[in-house]
Amino acid sequence: MRIDLNADVGESFGAYAIGHDPGLMKSITSANVAAGFHAGDPSVLRATIRRAKSHGVAVGAHPSFPDLAGFGRREMTVTPREAEDLVLYQIAAVAGVAHVEGVTLQHVKPHGALYNMAARDAALAGAIARAVAAFSRSLILFGLPGSELLKAGQAAGLRVAAEMFADRAYEPDGSLMSRKKSGAIIHEVDAVVARAVKMATDGAETICIHSDTPGADELAARVRAALEAAGVAVKPIGAA
Amino acid sequence: MRIDLNADVGESFGAYAIGHDPGLMKSITSANVAAGFHAGDPSVLRATIRRAKSHGVAVGAHPSFPDLAGFGRREMTVTPREAEDLVLYQIAAVAGVAHVEGVTLQHVKPHGALYNMAARDAALAGAIARAVAAFSRSLILFGLPGSELLKAGQAAGLRVAAEMFADRAYEPDGSLMSRKKSGAIIHEVDAVVARAVKMATDGAETICIHSDTPGADELAARVRAALEAAGVAVKPIGAA
Amino acid sequence: MRIDLNADVGESFGAYAIGHDPGLMKSITSANVAAGFHAGDPSVLRATIRRAKSHGVAVGAHPSFPDLAGFGRREMTVTPREAEDLVLYQIAAVAGVAHVEGVTLQHVKPHGALYNMAARDAALAGAIARAVAAFSRSLILFGLPGSELLKAGQAAGLRVAAEMFADRAYEPDGSLMSRKKSGAIIHEVDAVVARAVKMATDGAETICIHSDTPGADELAARVRAALEAAGVAVKPIGAA
Amino acid sequence: MRIDLNADVGESFGAYAIGHDPGLMKSITSANVAAGFHAGDPSVLRATIRRAKSHGVAVGAHPSFPDLAGFGRREMTVTPREAEDLVLYQIAAVAGVAHVEGVTLQHVKPHGALYNMAARDAALAGAIARAVAAFSRSLILFGLPGSELLKAGQAAGLRVAAEMFADRAYEPDGSLMSRKKSGAIIHEVDAVVARAVKMATDGAETICIHSDTPGADELAARVRAALEAAGVAVKPIGAA
Repeated sequence: MRIDLNADVGESFGAYAIGHDPGLMKSITSANVAAGFHAGDPSVLRATIRRAKSHGVAVGAHPSFPDLAGFGRREMTVTPREAEDLVLYQIAAVAGVAHVEGVTLQHVKPHGALYNMAARDAALAGAIARAVAAFSRSLILFGLPGSELLKAGQAAGLRVAAEMFADRAYEPDGSLMSRKKSGAIIHEVDAVVARAVKMATDGAETICIHSDTPGADELAARVRAALEAAGVAVKPIGAA
Repeated sequence: MRIDLNADVGESFGAYAIGHDPGLMKSITSANVAAGFHAGDPSVLRATIRRAKSHGVAVGAHPSFPDLAGFGRREMTVTPREAEDLVLYQIAAVAGVAHVEGVTLQHVKPHGALYNMAARDAALAGAIARAVAAFSRSLILFGLPGSELLKAGQAAGLRVAAEMFADRAYEPDGSLMSRKKSGAIIHEVDAVVARAVKMATDGAETICIHSDTPGADELAARVRAALEAAGVAVKPIGAA
Repeated sequence: MRIDLNADVGESFGAYAIGHDPGLMKSITSANVAAGFHAGDPSVLRATIRRAKSHGVAVGAHPSFPDLAGFGRREMTVTPREAEDLVLYQIAAVAGVAHVEGVTLQHVKPHGALYNMAARDAALAGAIARAVAAFSRSLILFGLPGSELLKAGQAAGLRVAAEMFADRAYEPDGSLMSRKKSGAIIHEVDAVVARAVKMATDGAETICIHSDTPGADELAARVRAALEAAGVAVKPIGAA
Repeated sequence: MRIDLNADVGESFGAYAIGHDPGLMKSITSANVAAGFHAGDPSVLRATIRRAKSHGVAVGAHPSFPDLAGFGRREMTVTPREAEDLVLYQIAAVAGVAHVEGVTLQHVKPHGALYNMAARDAALAGAIARAVAAFSRSLILFGLPGSELLKAGQAAGLRVAAEMFADRAYEPDGSLMSRKKSGAIIHEVDAVVARAVKMATDGAETICIHSDTPGADELAARVRAALEAAGVAVKPIGAA
């Protein structure tokens, strides 16, 4: 049994610090690195990749709609062509900086509203998958289980990974419970940890640790310790 | 005898069209492609690289200070570290998109105020050269003859190219005449064409065609025709 | 009989020129001045207000989603609160610069996707109307006939103006024909001119001249001349 | 004896929180509100003005170079015309939002690099002073003692205020000691408090509390308490 733990990192910008990167990096195995469109600046990006490398954390690109003011959380009606090109640009930027740091890009995980829209919009999902596959067929595409994004990734010949959220409830059919429903978000740390272990033993490939949760770094440490105690190997999804 | 003709291209942005790319691409041999910081958006960038490729024009990155409102023409006091990282980010983005289009990046030419400051500021020049060399030692760095930028490029082990401006007057010592002096800018087309031929036969490696000159595309065509008539091979600087 | 002719102006940005402002200003009576979020920079904004004033053209604010790369044409899911605040900010900026130039703001017309979304989204429309009314109850709010925006404006105690498009076909119920339908856009100049005259004599309050149509300035001149020939007074909607 | 305490506030942006506004607002009397160019977004701006009003803190505009990535701390070579227009735009935005909240703008204090450059560059200082005076001759212009900015403000007929920094050392001639010199920055809280009291009793008009100092809110509270204990009236500079 093995599992990958991923989190969004590198989201500081200029004078603005955000997130729990130093702590998170000790526990996660895959870093979704902001590419400059919703967060991250060139210096933050590079420092984040260096930090990931120093912890043995695999690096992925975390492309977004161009919306710094909205942190990439606002849906935007870009055309598939615009989406393909802006995702490609961001992958290129992260991969190129990673290359300079001696790191090969492992995966791509769209951010925020782009991730959510691509879960249900096949045209957008196809555009993202085309960008990823055009850049490298070795990249792993992260997305919601059952999403249009993962379907598009498979159709494009990519390895895909359905990510799970240990702090979110799921419907009987495996879809995420809407945040509007009571009980959709699980706040109790022990419950989140237990769910993560169950997800891993049930065969999940990667679990996302929400980096904007207060205490995300401690939660990640707890989750990792519990996984290891349960005999689950915690390592990057792309590792041998 | 051979010469390279370079021009800044891909400087449109969203709804905003600028430049003479379709015409210029017929005559130039090296394209300095805007990387999104002073001009260019991801879709413009990709379309520009495709257009360059279709014309056999070599592709270079044209990194800038982050200043869309000022088109990268305003000096900014970034630290060497910031400069290195923002140049690297832009090289990575252009190179990665070029890679997807089957094109290997040939060169890097800083844009506008970054180019001018790097001509005289050794610390900034060193930062740029470090970014270029870190990305690839095969890249050719363009700069002003005698500039700190070219010195830094050489010190970093890069091939450098001193670019000449056929529409600008030079001082006896080879430095560019200040635009504030009378006669600094040469407007007469025949004179510019004749100067380009002389520069090429005198051993210049690359000549810049200012893309913001009215009729830049026709001027480029005139220059190229005259060069070829004079027996000068017009081809990308990095070509065999 | 009287009519107002409005057009979007001041949409250049830095080195990027767009539109037909010098020509349009000779014929229109109300200028929708870009406020910096989809187009316009502080110097363009001020120069546009000066130009409007010199032609006796009334000045309005033309607020947008923050989307320079998309020219404000991409829908964004901002919250009503965000919408209210960003519209207010833009009105304040345009009104304050107009004040310095001795001009009192006449109207507000949301731009692009914000205009279109506010036509059908009551919560967004209410947010915009609140911002306008909070700034000044003397402002006139422009919108699509029958739109949620105009309803919200009326509910907020504002004078509203239903604008017509002489180059667009309408359905029998008075709604705009979708651009996807054949015949939705009228390209023939004589037809557009004739429609404008009919709209004015049928009681329209303001007609929009699309400033991104090729030859928009000449079209505006033709429309104005025909209106005046038909005995329609062409003047700003807020004029006595 | 009276004194004004000012601080930079409203510098959060979208998802990014920065500063100590809630605490600072309890002690300061004049708020320099970020206008969106180096920090602040329309919702932060409005909320900041509301907060200032609720604490009886006077509101000023804090215009900057357009440099979110650099937090307005990087010098930029804008022309005087550009500077005038971008300062005017920012004053207009802040003043207009303040107007809606029932607050009249009290003052203008340029931010960061704009402030520092305007201290020594007469052309830039003149441009800023023109923008302020054009907007309203009732505005008070804050600047460094002896600066070109204050001279330009006076020449433009504005009331100016020379601000002091209790945590910075001064040269015998009254100029700020360079940060590069040992002892230029005073870290010891008791010393800063004592200096503030001395400055106030020596006749200073306004003292700046650096909002990016750790514990800035507590320092402001200490300074205010000491001033009041010394019999100095702490109130907005523009108050009767």
